[in-house]
Amino acid sequence: MTQETVLYESVADSISGMISAGTLRPGERVPSVRRLSTQRRVSIATVLRAYEVLENRGLIEAKPNAGYYVRHRTPAADEPSISNPPAAAQLVGINALVQDVLDSRRPGVVSFGAACPGPDHMPTAKLQRIVSSIVRRKPLALTQYVLPPGNEELRRQIARKSLDLNCNLAAKDIIITHGAMEAVNVCVRAVARPGDTIAVESPTYFSLLQVFESLQIKALEIPTHPREGISLDALEFALERSKIAAVITMTNAQNPLGFTMSDENKKRLVRMLDKRGVALIEDDVYGDLYYGDERPLPAKAFDRSGNVMLCSSFTKTVAPGFRIGWVAPGRRHAQVQMMKFINSVGTAEVLQLALAEFLSSGGYDRQLRTLRRVFRDQVSHISTAVSQHFPAGTRITRPAGGFILWVELPEACDSVELFRQALRNNISLGPGVLFTATGRYRNCIRLGCAEPWSPRVEQAIVKLGELAARQL
Amino acid sequence: MTQETVLYESVADSISGMISAGTLRPGERVPSVRRLSTQRRVSIATVLRAYEVLENRGLIEAKPNAGYYVRHRTPAADEPSISNPPAAAQLVGINALVQDVLDSRRPGVVSFGAACPGPDHMPTAKLQRIVSSIVRRKPLALTQYVLPPGNEELRRQIARKSLDLNCNLAAKDIIITHGAMEAVNVCVRAVARPGDTIAVESPTYFSLLQVFESLQIKALEIPTHPREGISLDALEFALERSKIAAVITMTNAQNPLGFTMSDENKKRLVRMLDKRGVALIEDDVYGDLYYGDERPLPAKAFDRSGNVMLCSSFTKTVAPGFRIGWVAPGRRHAQVQMMKFINSVGTAEVLQLALAEFLSSGGYDRQLRTLRRVFRDQVSHISTAVSQHFPAGTRITRPAGGFILWVELPEACDSVELFRQALRNNISLGPGVLFTATGRYRNCIRLGCAEPWSPRVEQAIVKLGELAARQL
Repeated sequence: MTQETVLYESVADSISGMISAGTLRPGERVPSVRRLSTQRRVSIATVLRAYEVLENRGLIEAKPNAGYYVRHRTPAADEPSISNPPAAAQLVGINALVQDVLDSRRPGVVSFGAACPGPDHMPTAKLQRIVSSIVRRKPLALTQYVLPPGNEELRRQIARKSLDLNCNLAAKDIIITHGAMEAVNVCVRAVARPGDTIAVESPTYFSLLQVFESLQIKALEIPTHPREGISLDALEFALERSKIAAVITMTNAQNPLGFTMSDENKKRLVRMLDKRGVALIEDDVYGDLYYGDERPLPAKAFDRSGNVMLCSSFTKTVAPGFRIGWVAPGRRHAQVQMMKFINSVGTAEVLQLALAEFLSSGGYDRQLRTLRRVFRDQVSHISTAVSQHFPAGTRITRPAGGFILWVELPEACDSVELFRQALRNNISLGPGVLFTATGRYRNCIRLGCAEPWSPRVEQAIVKLGELAARQL
Repeated sequence: MTQETVLYESVADSISGMISAGTLRPGERVPSVRRLSTQRRVSIATVLRAYEVLENRGLIEAKPNAGYYVRHRTPAADEPSISNPPAAAQLVGINALVQDVLDSRRPGVVSFGAACPGPDHMPTAKLQRIVSSIVRRKPLALTQYVLPPGNEELRRQIARKSLDLNCNLAAKDIIITHGAMEAVNVCVRAVARPGDTIAVESPTYFSLLQVFESLQIKALEIPTHPREGISLDALEFALERSKIAAVITMTNAQNPLGFTMSDENKKRLVRMLDKRGVALIEDDVYGDLYYGDERPLPAKAFDRSGNVMLCSSFTKTVAPGFRIGWVAPGRRHAQVQMMKFINSVGTAEVLQLALAEFLSSGGYDRQLRTLRRVFRDQVSHISTAVSQHFPAGTRITRPAGGFILWVELPEACDSVELFRQALRNNISLGPGVLFTATGRYRNCIRLGCAEPWSPRVEQAIVKLGELAARQL
């Protein structure tokens, strides 16, 4: 190596180190060429060469007349292609492996397996103040019997917030649930019977498949593009061909692919299902965690007939420990409210009151701004690290929000085996086979990026890359 | 009327008035003959005659060498006889009427329709102190992600309490749920498939039937005696004859009949199902609210093989607003824990911690003593009032615990019509047809006695009696 090479690589490495340590964050400007040249006592040409190296590594980008910036989502690896599940509906059987993944969430394990944000960056102190105050002022909230639809003030606050969603909801349109999972459960039980078929994205969130399994409902997986979402052509074809009771989609920052559907596609989806009277259950838990400039709309925003059942929660955004979610079930309101009553009667009043106060205090928007930045950065770091350390041919999604990456390893890799090997190294991950009822995606893994970026996390990615490479 | 008659009837009426006003409570000693004779300036013979009248009315009883006491359960009306449901399993269809009954629970309505104890007699102040303290000491409980099986300390406290139940449970045997209803839901989903048949008491709690309805499970109703419980002979016959996936019973203070099964019958029930590998789901939410001297055991106490799935909660006894229940699912632990995860993920940690602290503080036993006395008195008052004011031929159960009465009106009465008429008079009740999938019990009503006895409650019973009489 020439001295010049050593020099510019050393400059490049120090900037790269600042990026991976989080000192320089995605979207932030890196030091100007002139400034770095002065600081490091190297020539302008050397700095320019170093920045060229960093550009080539996908770590920074030049903006015309504005200098260099840390890139947001720049994995060198390609995106996965559109999925191609079999066209027949399937019964599901993934419970045992899901339990193994849940059990892997324990202290000392780097937890890429779960999609469970911890208390980091959650408004713990503020919630503490609010809950104390509620308990002092409204002690009867602890001992009054609770029935659906839930606390009116919380429902009013959610309705108010739904202005941003263009959904025009009123308090009376909303039912409070134990998280979005209960919301989805009661919607499914309200619209589908055992033996029925529900169409879903492929891959999709494994708990949806487990709900189907427990209710003897068949999952019909529809080809899904990692950036555009469920193929509406394929869905339309399936609707013509089979009797489908409902469709479940995560239209924004889907789990596990991370895509957000375009408004045009959301509109088409809503119209397509409305025309046929097939319910759309929309799980929007990640919608508030978008990376772009504006809150993406839910499909519900385009619903004119009450056919869309919008489910969401505050578990990923404010209070993981509250387990409070909600559903706006549209014209099936009465059935869904009854299912919620049958499933678990009401939801703890004191937590509903506290959340209502948190929302009315205006703290929610600030909280979301923080979380979006944090999650985007964490996803960006992990994406970059995967690109650097995983075997050639690895593909990675470009999520539009949330904190989840979907990684397609070379064909020869076995994610279930990788899960077991990784766990022996105190690393967990989500094996791809969980996200389908078809047994596919064996060479894919889901990485939850909720844990703050750190050398420990980086080392875990390096180790995963090694383990995957050894499978080839 | 002779002057003597006027005299002793006046004495009897004043004692009777003290009993119905709650001044003299069931189990309390009435004034001695000598004392009353002095107070009222009447002869000993007159007081003795008055007490004879009260004995005949079933209001007091003599104890040898100990004077007279207010009787506990002394309705003049007979008990209903054993039920006789059809021998075929049925699909259920009662949702609409259940919603009407739930909607009738509103301010200004005397609420016999619900079985929802309010904050009266609940330990609101103590829970307030505990929740405040938990929030101060453990704020992360608000923002940490929660997964099943639930908080270990709460599970340990429940296990400790289970010593009284002779069940020998450890913390690891218990899964925390959103109330007993979620516990029952996840048990049903763990052991029965759509199209399967589950055997239940008849009448039974309507939400169990609704769970079946939502899962397309058939209910096979078994003849049930209002004092002895489910007919084990009939159940055994049914088990021989049909394929039954599970049996659900409330062995203690059943809803709606109020019976507690004998230990011998519980033993036989457990053995009968164990031998056949048919799961027993035991809903014990009212077990702690017994009227007798000792806590009745659950059937689970006689379970040697892990075939009994014991469900309970703290909703009826400590904290109606917490919605915290639990299940000890025996050998089906893994399936049930997975179903709980699928159904609603975890349960709010802060409320679990608070309940654990309440239980460990020793407050629970005192709380139960208070509630048992209160509910027994309320049930006794309403039972007496029904006997006095309802049409001849009315029959009433003698509950062994809880706060629920089942009233069989004369054949010609229509409880659904009575429900509508009563609601126009701001009184709610549970129409008997809700408690079966067979359309029977149309002349029966369930009266929840959770509301404190008062002239308003008494007037509501008088009014119900009038409305029922008008149907004849």
